[in-house]
Amino acid sequence: MTMDITPDTDTELVRYDVRDGVAVISWNRPHRNNAWTPALEDAYFTQLRVAAADDEVKAIVITGRGRHFSPGMDMQHLASASNGVHNRPPEEREPQTLPMTIPKPIIAAIHGSCAGTGFIQACVADVRFVAPDAKLTAAFVRRGIMAEHGLAVLLPAIVGTANALDILMSGRVLSGTEAAGLGFAKLAAPGRAVDEAVAYARDIAATCSPVALAITKKQVYEGISEPLESARRDALDIWKKLREHGDFKEGVASFVERRAPRFAPLDEQWVRIANTTS
Amino acid sequence: MTMDITPDTDTELVRYDVRDGVAVISWNRPHRNNAWTPALEDAYFTQLRVAAADDEVKAIVITGRGRHFSPGMDMQHLASASNGVHNRPPEEREPQTLPMTIPKPIIAAIHGSCAGTGFIQACVADVRFVAPDAKLTAAFVRRGIMAEHGLAVLLPAIVGTANALDILMSGRVLSGTEAAGLGFAKLAAPGRAVDEAVAYARDIAATCSPVALAITKKQVYEGISEPLESARRDALDIWKKLREHGDFKEGVASFVERRAPRFAPLDEQWVRIANTTS
Amino acid sequence: MTMDITPDTDTELVRYDVRDGVAVISWNRPHRNNAWTPALEDAYFTQLRVAAADDEVKAIVITGRGRHFSPGMDMQHLASASNGVHNRPPEEREPQTLPMTIPKPIIAAIHGSCAGTGFIQACVADVRFVAPDAKLTAAFVRRGIMAEHGLAVLLPAIVGTANALDILMSGRVLSGTEAAGLGFAKLAAPGRAVDEAVAYARDIAATCSPVALAITKKQVYEGISEPLESARRDALDIWKKLREHGDFKEGVASFVERRAPRFAPLDEQWVRIANTTS
Repeated sequence: MTMDITPDTDTELVRYDVRDGVAVISWNRPHRNNAWTPALEDAYFTQLRVAAADDEVKAIVITGRGRHFSPGMDMQHLASASNGVHNRPPEEREPQTLPMTIPKPIIAAIHGSCAGTGFIQACVADVRFVAPDAKLTAAFVRRGIMAEHGLAVLLPAIVGTANALDILMSGRVLSGTEAAGLGFAKLAAPGRAVDEAVAYARDIAATCSPVALAITKKQVYEGISEPLESARRDALDIWKKLREHGDFKEGVASFVERRAPRFAPLDEQWVRIANTTS
Repeated sequence: MTMDITPDTDTELVRYDVRDGVAVISWNRPHRNNAWTPALEDAYFTQLRVAAADDEVKAIVITGRGRHFSPGMDMQHLASASNGVHNRPPEEREPQTLPMTIPKPIIAAIHGSCAGTGFIQACVADVRFVAPDAKLTAAFVRRGIMAEHGLAVLLPAIVGTANALDILMSGRVLSGTEAAGLGFAKLAAPGRAVDEAVAYARDIAATCSPVALAITKKQVYEGISEPLESARRDALDIWKKLREHGDFKEGVASFVERRAPRFAPLDEQWVRIANTTS
Repeated sequence: MTMDITPDTDTELVRYDVRDGVAVISWNRPHRNNAWTPALEDAYFTQLRVAAADDEVKAIVITGRGRHFSPGMDMQHLASASNGVHNRPPEEREPQTLPMTIPKPIIAAIHGSCAGTGFIQACVADVRFVAPDAKLTAAFVRRGIMAEHGLAVLLPAIVGTANALDILMSGRVLSGTEAAGLGFAKLAAPGRAVDEAVAYARDIAATCSPVALAITKKQVYEGISEPLESARRDALDIWKKLREHGDFKEGVASFVERRAPRFAPLDEQWVRIANTTS
């Protein structure tokens, strides 16, 4: 049986606003609480690539418009899949971990419901701010689904193995306050998750070197399964190149002169060069 | 010199009670505060296998009868070993990590003393509830023993490298409250560790898919040393098979219909099939 | 342009005091807030090796004299490096991770400023005590530098991937209280970081087996990227040898007899023997 799926208008799926070096990307299906669809995913990933290539953008905030982050896969689509109608199964889509490959910091602002795919997209952001009354859940085991998309490695890396087993094996709902207590996110004041995420991102945009940020992000994610000694040696190799980049001179000069730095826009060529050893 | 070792009656070493989908396995040597012996270990591991094969059992709670979890190896046996009388040394016993291979959630309820082997058995459970006044200690370094049975990897995975070094290199005693603060366990109300562990396990039994639980547990433990990208790809392979399992359809249907799910009992064949890629 | 660099007198760079089994090694450039120089590094690493070989020393406390731990590389040297004058670049110096290879517990007492190289040296200690009003920062991205010296693996091992990304990608300053809340350090009472670190180290010196400590430290650091099952099997191999060491007999005997243990001084030969399997 094929389910009837309500169509969206592509152009409205994601909002994109850039100010003060920060791009705010908002999922824009508030009529469905930003429930996930393949089209929303495509629009979101496309917009992340736009932000990656945009020289004005030093850091990215992601959030959902309206009262919710995202409650996960739209039930109209999920029910369809559970009936054997695979509306583009995951193996034919881009990796859910794509945001981890974007060479700029991604800050998630979480409020309301954050479940299933919404929870995964929160996990693959780099830093999270969460409203105290947000409701977060992995939920997979309650639908007959195991840990998806590398979450079996990523979630323990964030909150430790025991907290990850608790979250993944119970499928229970955590409040934002509880999630923050586990180290999953930074606790925002009530109603202020987006504002605090934007302020945090602006501070990064104003003070941090784009090339250093891009390499640091890559280092940490590759480091999840890397021996410490190999990470140490890689860092020496990267440093031999990066110290010739103008941002090092500018970083030290601005510090000594007690002024705001003027760093170069991200040149991905540098990230590739710096990483040729690994 | 051979030490005199008090014999136990095998049939009383472990209690096994199943209700509401939850097996409670209790170590039953309260006259010795549940101090560990090879015979207790055999009885415990045997009972874990019974619970694994029992279709009524969806989740397992382990605890010690009386006022203590377990203070570790019975001193009568340990003193014997330190005098060169090896009463079945560890290399001739089953791995202490056996509970990690049981394909059902294991929840430890910790109260009173939890030391040495008792501490190890707490670590190899999946989730822990702890009484505020419980006394936990790794203690090994104080007996001239290094980190046993993989604890050098498992404890850092649970509480991070620094907390693990603190616990393993000082051999100091932590209260239940402090252990919970480190992310080692969930803090129970005074006198309620067993009750809270059972309630938590019952919730899993009532709401979660046994096959999804079994695969999730395996994913997380294998993920401790697995690259994120490989875990991501494995999850795609597993999902291609698991989405044909009836539990996915039932998980979505019960959610959409707002009713309790009726999942299939665990068929370990499925766990093996799902994992043939890894 | 070559910068003018103020010389230090080598003999005063590091203080070394041994009492009650604990060596306190203090960086001694209070006129520069213990800012890091290659000469300070050499003197510090030399002194760590002295402590490693000193039979009186069972545990080591490191700290900075005066009001600060260390604000990182002395700006006179860093500015010189950013101008292309490489005053011994890192690849020609010893690994910053050298303290992790010292076979005795190293406890850092952190107060005042702890930044850059100071932050790295805090990270490569085994356990940290921190003053509530200490100011900690990785800072690298603000100078155009990526995560140095294996910190991309080590910091996530200590505080988790998300907290590490927060610290490394924002370069922001954390108070001691906040750093303790992330599991980075143990919170000391105001003005008591050194005293608490020394008391903690004395307790280890008085109660723990030096050979067990040395092996445990090695196990945990090697375990950062080791499969759990391999760590489990290595521990069995180590134990087959270590249980013949007198410290095991003494550890059990002193426990049974409720008296202080008299352990053997560290014989590094044992550490090598115990680790020949791995």
